[in-house]
Amino acid sequence: MRDVQPLIAPRSIAVIGASTNTAKSGGILFSNLVSGGFKGGLYPINPKATEILGCKAYPSLADVPEPVDLVYIVLPSQHMESSIVQCVEAKAKAACIITAGFAEAGPEGIALQDKIREIGRKGGLLMAGPNTIGMVNTDVRMMGSFVNFPRWEEGGISLFTQTGIFTGAVMRQIMDSDVQRPPISKSIDVGNKIDVDELDFLHFAEKDEGTKVIGFYIESIRDLPGFAAKVKEISRTKPVVMLKPGRTAFGKMASACHTGSPPSDDTEVTAALKGSGILRVDDEEEFVNVLRALAYLPRPKGRRLGIATTSGALGVIASDYASDFGFELAQYSEATLNKMETVFPDWLRAANPFDFWIGIDVKGPREAHEIGLEAAFADPNVDLVLCTLLAPPNADFPEMGALLRRLRETYDKPVALVLYGSAAARWTQEIEGAGIPVFSNVRAGVRTLSLIAQEPA
Amino acid sequence: MRDVQPLIAPRSIAVIGASTNTAKSGGILFSNLVSGGFKGGLYPINPKATEILGCKAYPSLADVPEPVDLVYIVLPSQHMESSIVQCVEAKAKAACIITAGFAEAGPEGIALQDKIREIGRKGGLLMAGPNTIGMVNTDVRMMGSFVNFPRWEEGGISLFTQTGIFTGAVMRQIMDSDVQRPPISKSIDVGNKIDVDELDFLHFAEKDEGTKVIGFYIESIRDLPGFAAKVKEISRTKPVVMLKPGRTAFGKMASACHTGSPPSDDTEVTAALKGSGILRVDDEEEFVNVLRALAYLPRPKGRRLGIATTSGALGVIASDYASDFGFELAQYSEATLNKMETVFPDWLRAANPFDFWIGIDVKGPREAHEIGLEAAFADPNVDLVLCTLLAPPNADFPEMGALLRRLRETYDKPVALVLYGSAAARWTQEIEGAGIPVFSNVRAGVRTLSLIAQEPA
Repeated sequence: MRDVQPLIAPRSIAVIGASTNTAKSGGILFSNLVSGGFKGGLYPINPKATEILGCKAYPSLADVPEPVDLVYIVLPSQHMESSIVQCVEAKAKAACIITAGFAEAGPEGIALQDKIREIGRKGGLLMAGPNTIGMVNTDVRMMGSFVNFPRWEEGGISLFTQTGIFTGAVMRQIMDSDVQRPPISKSIDVGNKIDVDELDFLHFAEKDEGTKVIGFYIESIRDLPGFAAKVKEISRTKPVVMLKPGRTAFGKMASACHTGSPPSDDTEVTAALKGSGILRVDDEEEFVNVLRALAYLPRPKGRRLGIATTSGALGVIASDYASDFGFELAQYSEATLNKMETVFPDWLRAANPFDFWIGIDVKGPREAHEIGLEAAFADPNVDLVLCTLLAPPNADFPEMGALLRRLRETYDKPVALVLYGSAAARWTQEIEGAGIPVFSNVRAGVRTLSLIAQEPA
Repeated sequence: MRDVQPLIAPRSIAVIGASTNTAKSGGILFSNLVSGGFKGGLYPINPKATEILGCKAYPSLADVPEPVDLVYIVLPSQHMESSIVQCVEAKAKAACIITAGFAEAGPEGIALQDKIREIGRKGGLLMAGPNTIGMVNTDVRMMGSFVNFPRWEEGGISLFTQTGIFTGAVMRQIMDSDVQRPPISKSIDVGNKIDVDELDFLHFAEKDEGTKVIGFYIESIRDLPGFAAKVKEISRTKPVVMLKPGRTAFGKMASACHTGSPPSDDTEVTAALKGSGILRVDDEEEFVNVLRALAYLPRPKGRRLGIATTSGALGVIASDYASDFGFELAQYSEATLNKMETVFPDWLRAANPFDFWIGIDVKGPREAHEIGLEAAFADPNVDLVLCTLLAPPNADFPEMGALLRRLRETYDKPVALVLYGSAAARWTQEIEGAGIPVFSNVRAGVRTLSLIAQEPA
């Protein structure tokens, strides 16, 4: 297996097409690399400049005084062949071709992409792209993307994608939030996937200390049996999430247009990955939700779901989805039920879902939540906890954040919160950093728990 | 059919158990009625008070100087029988029993609820509750709920629910947003549904001028054939949306606990409502999304979906969901494709989804969006438009809001927007009031469009 470290975690970077004009692609990308604080040598290649953003510029790669691991290329496609030749001649180890207009652009583009691949491979060059938004790696502080991420949340999720949105607009929007940002280690968009592929990345991620959870957005899988075998090998220690759209005939057509290559047949992908432990999701929201949940939570020991709710309706909706997504509703123990009923009027019996709204009237919000939530967490028959909670003023109390933090810490069980009402934002803020994922609706919460409850290989 | 106007749109209201103490249920509810600015006479009934929040208090209903349409009762359950007797004797027309502890509370509660029902019905009293959060009707400015809604968005959606969350925490959270608030006319929570039911409400809503769209959260349907027939009659002019959880065995059990009565069998409900034109949703998020879409959009003339996207990946995900939810992908006309390709480099062909991201580089963001979006709206083969758009700085331009407004106005086609990126919030703000629903993810957008595209009866 090839070592793709020079591409993903380079020690030095050159940018062919770096520009002083930050309205141009080459200017934006170079500026993001500089402001991101890349930890190694950074070399703008531009025959017309002497310095760009404080970095000495060089007319060509050959002039750079140290060996270069990774070369970003942002020149128009007609200059690509010569740029790749330049990389090979200068003994650069990897190239990330940002420019579009290759395999996704019809016969000529395909021919050009094939030619570049041949030159690069002969020269031993690792290649990503073309048609990519770039690559981010917080370990080496490489913000090699058109999009700048001043609030990137560092952590253990490593992404490999055939699309720009997870190193681009989606991630940027997520990172704009003050709370619940998924902690990301790397986001590697390979665009048309000219060379380095998902299996190369799996080998890298397996050994990479910064990677705890692996996420793939892929539309094709080059070596399906090899990929499936590797996923099976590592998914127990490093969970692997895959968003591979193109499940349907419409999606397959759209996928062919998007990446410029025929997508993998979905039936074959499904068959090959069966039993590999891969967690497959259907859309961008599920992808982010599951990655976040895996980063925040332990995996459950079984599929017995305990529901604690202050909305009967959300409890019923959650029960339907629990059934849809293959959960059992946990049978609370006698001791738990007795404990739960201490916040109830005499006439009421507890069950699962445990709806303790009335307990707020009986005991006040603090005691009702303390007893109601802890009972569900503590019960030995519960493998996962779903809390669908209403937060209007009468259900609110100052210690809610502390309570949730304590429960999460005391009982090492996966939990999902779904919150509605005026205090929901404050509660969410108060559990920031505690490893408790909050979801915006019941379906997202139950679906995400069901995915992390899927059997590893 | 009974006229339930005195319950839903009363001309005068009394509150038995109104209190000066706004920490108590009776205090909160009365205070919300006062601050909501109810348009008719408002009478607190409390033998210990002479005045509550500026309203003269009366020792009993009989002492109120005008006939009372609606009586809210917030006393504990042991006082309920005498309160209902009082309503009947004073010839009040309707009562809303807020208090819990009846049919949902075991055999004694069931007996008490039955007894109250009998007394009320004999006395010709319309009844809602018990176990309800209350009722809101903006036509008469009745904020008869525990939850106050200072930012309630008035409009044509009328809700009838067997749960408090849509007159409570969910709605409150929605109304806290600055944008995309669904316009609501009425939200009537009947709790345990002692008397007035979904069919009564349908008859009312049919004739109610303020009601354009009808939403039901119900766990049981009392007269299923009658309800189905009425839905079929009116769903073409006033769309009817139904969230009836308890689809599964787990959900059915949870539903029985929630409302204190056996839920309707889902198979029977599905069979009876087939062909009625009802739009059935599965959860609280879909419920709100579909109601909002119906309030904002015309119904489509067919199921041919045109997708305009600046993310290839979102286009592929959308295509899969289009297939899942029964759409056809529209075949753009030759003229449309030619128009679309004016924002492309020469080598690129347009298709559906129309991914015009590269057009932003070629023509700049304004022209790319103007041509890209308008082509999809204008095409005669397109019945509905889905726009999945990325809004990073390089795709942003000042006229985006105006463009979307113009397209929505010019082409009377249903459209859904899914936006990601830094400018997404501004774009959403700029189309406020233009009747363009924005969704937080691709699935929600496609699913919602598919529901409003369902054939009316």
